[in-house]
Amino acid sequence: MTPDSILQLLESIQSGETTPADALSRLSRLPFEDTGFAKIDHHRSLRLGLPEVIYAAGKSPEQVADIFARMAQTGGSVIATRAGVDAFAAVKEAVPGAEYHQVARVIGLSAASPQPPAGRIAVVCAGTSDLPVAEEAAVTAGYLGLEVDRIVDVGVAGLHRILSQSDVLSRARVVIVCAGMEGALPSVVGGLVAAPVIAVPTSVGYGAAFGGVAALLGMLNSCSPNVCVVNIDNGFGAAYVAAMAVRQ
Amino acid sequence: MTPDSILQLLESIQSGETTPADALSRLSRLPFEDTGFAKIDHHRSLRLGLPEVIYAAGKSPEQVADIFARMAQTGGSVIATRAGVDAFAAVKEAVPGAEYHQVARVIGLSAASPQPPAGRIAVVCAGTSDLPVAEEAAVTAGYLGLEVDRIVDVGVAGLHRILSQSDVLSRARVVIVCAGMEGALPSVVGGLVAAPVIAVPTSVGYGAAFGGVAALLGMLNSCSPNVCVVNIDNGFGAAYVAAMAVRQ
Amino acid sequence: MTPDSILQLLESIQSGETTPADALSRLSRLPFEDTGFAKIDHHRSLRLGLPEVIYAAGKSPEQVADIFARMAQTGGSVIATRAGVDAFAAVKEAVPGAEYHQVARVIGLSAASPQPPAGRIAVVCAGTSDLPVAEEAAVTAGYLGLEVDRIVDVGVAGLHRILSQSDVLSRARVVIVCAGMEGALPSVVGGLVAAPVIAVPTSVGYGAAFGGVAALLGMLNSCSPNVCVVNIDNGFGAAYVAAMAVRQ
Amino acid sequence: MTPDSILQLLESIQSGETTPADALSRLSRLPFEDTGFAKIDHHRSLRLGLPEVIYAAGKSPEQVADIFARMAQTGGSVIATRAGVDAFAAVKEAVPGAEYHQVARVIGLSAASPQPPAGRIAVVCAGTSDLPVAEEAAVTAGYLGLEVDRIVDVGVAGLHRILSQSDVLSRARVVIVCAGMEGALPSVVGGLVAAPVIAVPTSVGYGAAFGGVAALLGMLNSCSPNVCVVNIDNGFGAAYVAAMAVRQ
Amino acid sequence: MTPDSILQLLESIQSGETTPADALSRLSRLPFEDTGFAKIDHHRSLRLGLPEVIYAAGKSPEQVADIFARMAQTGGSVIATRAGVDAFAAVKEAVPGAEYHQVARVIGLSAASPQPPAGRIAVVCAGTSDLPVAEEAAVTAGYLGLEVDRIVDVGVAGLHRILSQSDVLSRARVVIVCAGMEGALPSVVGGLVAAPVIAVPTSVGYGAAFGGVAALLGMLNSCSPNVCVVNIDNGFGAAYVAAMAVRQ
Amino acid sequence: MTPDSILQLLESIQSGETTPADALSRLSRLPFEDTGFAKIDHHRSLRLGLPEVIYAAGKSPEQVADIFARMAQTGGSVIATRAGVDAFAAVKEAVPGAEYHQVARVIGLSAASPQPPAGRIAVVCAGTSDLPVAEEAAVTAGYLGLEVDRIVDVGVAGLHRILSQSDVLSRARVVIVCAGMEGALPSVVGGLVAAPVIAVPTSVGYGAAFGGVAALLGMLNSCSPNVCVVNIDNGFGAAYVAAMAVRQ
Amino acid sequence: MTPDSILQLLESIQSGETTPADALSRLSRLPFEDTGFAKIDHHRSLRLGLPEVIYAAGKSPEQVADIFARMAQTGGSVIATRAGVDAFAAVKEAVPGAEYHQVARVIGLSAASPQPPAGRIAVVCAGTSDLPVAEEAAVTAGYLGLEVDRIVDVGVAGLHRILSQSDVLSRARVVIVCAGMEGALPSVVGGLVAAPVIAVPTSVGYGAAFGGVAALLGMLNSCSPNVCVVNIDNGFGAAYVAAMAVRQ
Amino acid sequence: MTPDSILQLLESIQSGETTPADALSRLSRLPFEDTGFAKIDHHRSLRLGLPEVIYAAGKSPEQVADIFARMAQTGGSVIATRAGVDAFAAVKEAVPGAEYHQVARVIGLSAASPQPPAGRIAVVCAGTSDLPVAEEAAVTAGYLGLEVDRIVDVGVAGLHRILSQSDVLSRARVVIVCAGMEGALPSVVGGLVAAPVIAVPTSVGYGAAFGGVAALLGMLNSCSPNVCVVNIDNGFGAAYVAAMAVRQ
Repeated sequence: MTPDSILQLLESIQSGETTPADALSRLSRLPFEDTGFAKIDHHRSLRLGLPEVIYAAGKSPEQVADIFARMAQTGGSVIATRAGVDAFAAVKEAVPGAEYHQVARVIGLSAASPQPPAGRIAVVCAGTSDLPVAEEAAVTAGYLGLEVDRIVDVGVAGLHRILSQSDVLSRARVVIVCAGMEGALPSVVGGLVAAPVIAVPTSVGYGAAFGGVAALLGMLNSCSPNVCVVNIDNGFGAAYVAAMAVRQ
Repeated sequence: MTPDSILQLLESIQSGETTPADALSRLSRLPFEDTGFAKIDHHRSLRLGLPEVIYAAGKSPEQVADIFARMAQTGGSVIATRAGVDAFAAVKEAVPGAEYHQVARVIGLSAASPQPPAGRIAVVCAGTSDLPVAEEAAVTAGYLGLEVDRIVDVGVAGLHRILSQSDVLSRARVVIVCAGMEGALPSVVGGLVAAPVIAVPTSVGYGAAFGGVAALLGMLNSCSPNVCVVNIDNGFGAAYVAAMAVRQ
Repeated sequence: MTPDSILQLLESIQSGETTPADALSRLSRLPFEDTGFAKIDHHRSLRLGLPEVIYAAGKSPEQVADIFARMAQTGGSVIATRAGVDAFAAVKEAVPGAEYHQVARVIGLSAASPQPPAGRIAVVCAGTSDLPVAEEAAVTAGYLGLEVDRIVDVGVAGLHRILSQSDVLSRARVVIVCAGMEGALPSVVGGLVAAPVIAVPTSVGYGAAFGGVAALLGMLNSCSPNVCVVNIDNGFGAAYVAAMAVRQ
Repeated sequence: MTPDSILQLLESIQSGETTPADALSRLSRLPFEDTGFAKIDHHRSLRLGLPEVIYAAGKSPEQVADIFARMAQTGGSVIATRAGVDAFAAVKEAVPGAEYHQVARVIGLSAASPQPPAGRIAVVCAGTSDLPVAEEAAVTAGYLGLEVDRIVDVGVAGLHRILSQSDVLSRARVVIVCAGMEGALPSVVGGLVAAPVIAVPTSVGYGAAFGGVAALLGMLNSCSPNVCVVNIDNGFGAAYVAAMAVRQ
Repeated sequence: MTPDSILQLLESIQSGETTPADALSRLSRLPFEDTGFAKIDHHRSLRLGLPEVIYAAGKSPEQVADIFARMAQTGGSVIATRAGVDAFAAVKEAVPGAEYHQVARVIGLSAASPQPPAGRIAVVCAGTSDLPVAEEAAVTAGYLGLEVDRIVDVGVAGLHRILSQSDVLSRARVVIVCAGMEGALPSVVGGLVAAPVIAVPTSVGYGAAFGGVAALLGMLNSCSPNVCVVNIDNGFGAAYVAAMAVRQ
Repeated sequence: MTPDSILQLLESIQSGETTPADALSRLSRLPFEDTGFAKIDHHRSLRLGLPEVIYAAGKSPEQVADIFARMAQTGGSVIATRAGVDAFAAVKEAVPGAEYHQVARVIGLSAASPQPPAGRIAVVCAGTSDLPVAEEAAVTAGYLGLEVDRIVDVGVAGLHRILSQSDVLSRARVVIVCAGMEGALPSVVGGLVAAPVIAVPTSVGYGAAFGGVAALLGMLNSCSPNVCVVNIDNGFGAAYVAAMAVRQ
Repeated sequence: MTPDSILQLLESIQSGETTPADALSRLSRLPFEDTGFAKIDHHRSLRLGLPEVIYAAGKSPEQVADIFARMAQTGGSVIATRAGVDAFAAVKEAVPGAEYHQVARVIGLSAASPQPPAGRIAVVCAGTSDLPVAEEAAVTAGYLGLEVDRIVDVGVAGLHRILSQSDVLSRARVVIVCAGMEGALPSVVGGLVAAPVIAVPTSVGYGAAFGGVAALLGMLNSCSPNVCVVNIDNGFGAAYVAAMAVRQ
Repeated sequence: MTPDSILQLLESIQSGETTPADALSRLSRLPFEDTGFAKIDHHRSLRLGLPEVIYAAGKSPEQVADIFARMAQTGGSVIATRAGVDAFAAVKEAVPGAEYHQVARVIGLSAASPQPPAGRIAVVCAGTSDLPVAEEAAVTAGYLGLEVDRIVDVGVAGLHRILSQSDVLSRARVVIVCAGMEGALPSVVGGLVAAPVIAVPTSVGYGAAFGGVAALLGMLNSCSPNVCVVNIDNGFGAAYVAAMAVRQ
């Protein structure tokens, strides 16, 4: 039942065809998407200008290209994460304006009429091996309408490196910190800023790193109280939470 | 907004006070419980005659008694699981008809006008240490309107014990099997019956039993395909699933 | 020793060839399948018309085809799960009537004289990545004699999608719910239906999804009491338990 | 070496007592807190008016009271988390204006001249057993200068409960969601709001809940991308991250 | 149906009262313990003279005493493991000949007419903290009819201690080795003897000992191929396996 | 220092070249293998006629062939486990009498003058997928001088299959049971025999089987007290322990 | 056989009573402790002046006092770790010179004639909750002959605190770092010093700290290559390794 | 800001261009690496002559070669760990003096003017499968300026092998012990030497070895107090800690 058909029902009360009691009975059994619930969803994307997102892992290049092209017709921005070169080739053919961010493995299309940036964040990573996750976060944040400062290779074994970036850190409204191995960097950054730190454990490391579990546990137990955590390697999610926080 | 107020809204269309378009707009923002959604819930409990359930662990005797008494006013059956002697004393004072099933740690009140049994199940347990969990399942199943055969102390190290119960097993529409340690009994029972087996791992055991984890894993990997599993020590849940299956 | 040879033994008592004491001694050492135990098994498959099942993973196409062909001679239905295209090619050559369900990875042969459907279930999945597991459940359920409604892509992050399916859900005698990542869908569905929910955790996800463990734990701890669980990715088992429950 | 003594050093260059080269040599060995680094810290607390925080677990009532009294002298707000009745008695004696929030186990002292609220958040919990954690979050958030809406007992097994709260949810700039067992609520709430969701797994549950691990994993794998996570039972941390996000 | 009643049935064939076909039909439905299956069990205990065993943990002193007294009537030996002083007091009253082995926490009663020892084993433990487990093994082995050499406090950090016991080790037909912490002793002993080594991980240790898991894993991965393992702290089981091996 | 050189030292006392005190001093610092310790090792292999064993995994075919050929020169039996076809080709060229057991992945060479069998064991496995592990055990046991009965495909979901093998089981001095998935078979077999059961968990299964961990835990928690366990997939170790037990 | 008796044997060669060949035969079977092996042990303690150590956990006060008194008779230093007040009372009575270090839970007795300090180390801890472990390390190190600088409450959330201690850190030959929660401090300290860092994870924390596992994993994955790790809460072990390193 | 520019600032005070207060203000905001902090780092590498280190895993041969060549220009030694043959080919072209250590997978370049060895250590491994890790340790230690004794294939199942090496062990100032499977060797070696033992768990093993976890846990729980541990397979880290300890 569409909003149109609800309107018809209500008009049939007006015209006397249906009694209010009968109408109530029929409304009570309405599928929920027909009663405006789904509109909230639309309101949200309209208000925030958030891009449509495709998780490309496990989809064929053709599937990614199909979905991407369909989404691109709305005129808004579109991104596909965890996308390989093949997927980009297929998308590029269907949507010539699409761009590929190789390290981030993100395919993106800017909105036809982009909005001004919503605010500035910083994306920090401990080592060069963490770059793919950090770039996924940074590139996603860009398409979500944020300005992004990147700070790379500032592991805690050489503190002067992160300490020298305090100016950049201090102007960020949210700081995303990606780190593998022991995942100590978010705690250190958390002590340097007065902003939320979104920690992203990465699967960088070997042995007792357990594919990111050591970093995940370290971040969950951070002694800096302004640290929250997303899933291992989930740069996209960190950027999304950051955008939600900045765009209020 | 209650059903009554929706009716008023619809009547205001009839009377011409409100246009159908305005009414559509207001209906789209209705809280969901007001549009009949919660009624499904009521339909369910009315149709099935299921008891109200209180999880007593972590509640004071007074809290249990208060909730129990309030629920008892509907005339339906009521049970409180994981309830100690103290909780029963408090309930007994408020609801004299309540009964205590000590091994099961369940307080129960039968419905004023009980329905005929919905069907027969069997509750099986491997050792006497599993009895509290098995009894929680069996007693709960009784209040849920099932007839229950109990089979106790039929661990797989002495197969003749369970094999001698094949007649009882064969008349059960669902078989609940509680076992700790290696949790092998559900697999064996699953091979003996043509009914669903609901396996309940118990926290019985020590060392590498890991508080029921060994039994849980064993049951999830059962080589008998008719075995499904609930949480460790969750006799109540097993009975509830069984009642749902039998009462279709 | 077959039933025939037991009969011979008993007749030899009648004829005086064997004393009762000698016969008792020999009977005491009988292999159990010879004393009617195995008949229960036959009774079951005859009564329920359940198909023979082959777990094809780890078997060569030739092995699968050989077993499949042998089973097909009984005239009943046959299925092979976790079967690849190669296995199907081999089976097809031996049993021309066999069909391949690609997403489900199931090869099936309908019974020569199929029985009427035993009842209706629903198979629900959270995302398109869960489809292979959901289809294994749905296809298996079909060969087990059930009618199946499929509900796809109704993850809990967009509740209106599952809420709009309440009519389909309400007519199911059992609901199978497949979900990876956080595995929250069975809890939500469990609150919407008055039927058993068989939850199937899938290995969909990454990082802290731990190959389905996060979903498995979520389902075992469901706050909906009508939820039980099978092994990760075990669509077949869910269908089998459902068939057992419906066909009582 | 204090800023004063650095100034003296620099003045001694001006006066000719010290050569620039000698001064450089001495400055290079300065402890870092003396070179202004610690000032950032002071700037932060001054700018944000954040309370001083004591983690009372494992400290004696006397220790808590001593630290609390010392901190109270600054005139700002002070809180002690995980504090028992005994600790409050000791604090109350030393700081008569302190208040005790029993369910939250928080002792608090409002600032002498409190600032206007910085923004509004919602604190949601799945069941009454999650209340202590939710209250720790809500009470802490209050002392951190936020307005807080509380939404209690809206578990996903009865969706209408959370759906009916959409108005309250929609006005929150951040939503904190506390849940034990399967931890599914943050995913559902995440789909209903356009704000960051800070998920707090609680240790509520038994068996395969593993003291909050099941909920933690569920939340880390949320299919709603606007969900981030803090440690099990860490209501304080969730409030702190929320305050950081709101007070930018 | 007892063997006697089967005999009656067979005799009724002989006498012509029953036809062989009828008898076959009745035999096919016999509970298995009636067809001689349970006799195997009796044969075993008669042949081996194994004691009856009670697992006393979680049973009341009265329950232990009741079962103990009933078992003692057969004249064979009886043991109760994991038994406290209270349980012994109750048993002692009912069965004056019972003895208590305090460190082992075993109550035992020797058979009225004991058999000669079946063979000699050694029970070795790494530290004095492992003694309760080692004594449970040694005392149990004694009641199972084995001669036992005890070797105590021979941890691998001082190799000369175990090396000096090579004579004692070399005369053992089975060696039971109990060790906590890193559980390295079974590997070392395994290299010194030409006999099966039954390794018993103990829950001795702290931190990353994880209640015996570190020792368990060490023993399962022993580089000595003659090592097998039982559950953590399961001294009883080790003795039972040893008795089975020696008494062939 | 060899035994010869020790003898020289002692003879130099006799001849007066060395004082007893000097000799004591030199003897105290002797490497242990020189004082007869290593002889124990030789005594063992001579007495038991145990084969030399090569763990071929991770070695090149050439390395395996080299070691194999060197060991073969002693005239005793030699085996290489976890060996592929390539390794066999290389060994075959160097030692023409070597044989390959494909399912077991074992290369073996019988002793030039084999001893009579030391005793009989049974090797049991639950499903055909467990065959490689069971065959590794059975083939190894053969080279270790045991007679082996193989019992295949007797999973606990169809009990009549294992029950029908009680004669074969009863003549085994040790029973090796290999099982994956829930690993319940050793418990069932343990209840049927009066012999030690050596349980070998296999990595057969998927999902919550966790590569053999579920089976391992099930076996460690067996309710049959005559069960001990070796590492996952360690058929070789089970055979070695069995040989040690039988050859006493 | 003691060294004396070996000497007798050698003298009997000299005297002609024994032939060298006979003596060789007897020496080959000597228990190892008799051939000087145990002397190495004595050499070590004599050379290093290391104290005797008692692990008091799980021992009665009387047992601790007995062992302590016996050890004290050698005149060297003695320590008992994990010792409570009761144990100290008992020790004090037997050995009046003993001292109790309450936070460290160590009872110590200095050597009658102590050696000069062997070198200087630093013991660092992240928070006051880590103090018991840090003190166990520091007090033990003192009795092991080291000079110890203590640095307390320098968690990574406030970097200026540890940075201000660089002078103290730089004069340490080994740095012991105790930290719970995320265990990040050793990585930070490792980057500041040119000395080995011995990291001690503590069980401080809650939730996903898992009793010290999060800290342990963090330390094992440290990005500072000069970090090694001991067991959770093992302050004693860290001190012992440090003493070994310094006293070369 | 470089030291030069700080000097300019200080000179501008001297010349009167800048007031001390202004200079203080500018100094307070200096990035830390400019105030001498980074110099500590330089001091350290100059004083110790430690090589530059590249972790080659996950870098392309070109990247490794580029970094290697740049580092080589300082004239000090350079090493790249976890480097394959391809990486070496690329490095060799850029830096002809580089050498490849194949088993260790290390590319190394000796310093132009090497220092005399700083001390002697031993690197011990249990089996030949542990050699790659042991060689990574030994080769790294060589470039770090240590003399290294290698002891191979001395697993604890044949104790005489390690006991015969006591002379070599006794002259080592640090002993690195690499072992997989049960990881027992460090405990045994720890009892034989009066030096720190750095234990390196290796990922050698299968089944319950869990990729080195069993060895790791064993080593963390060592009963020899002079044992500390590094990450699984981290031979490089062990050598680095050893060098730090020796070079004090």
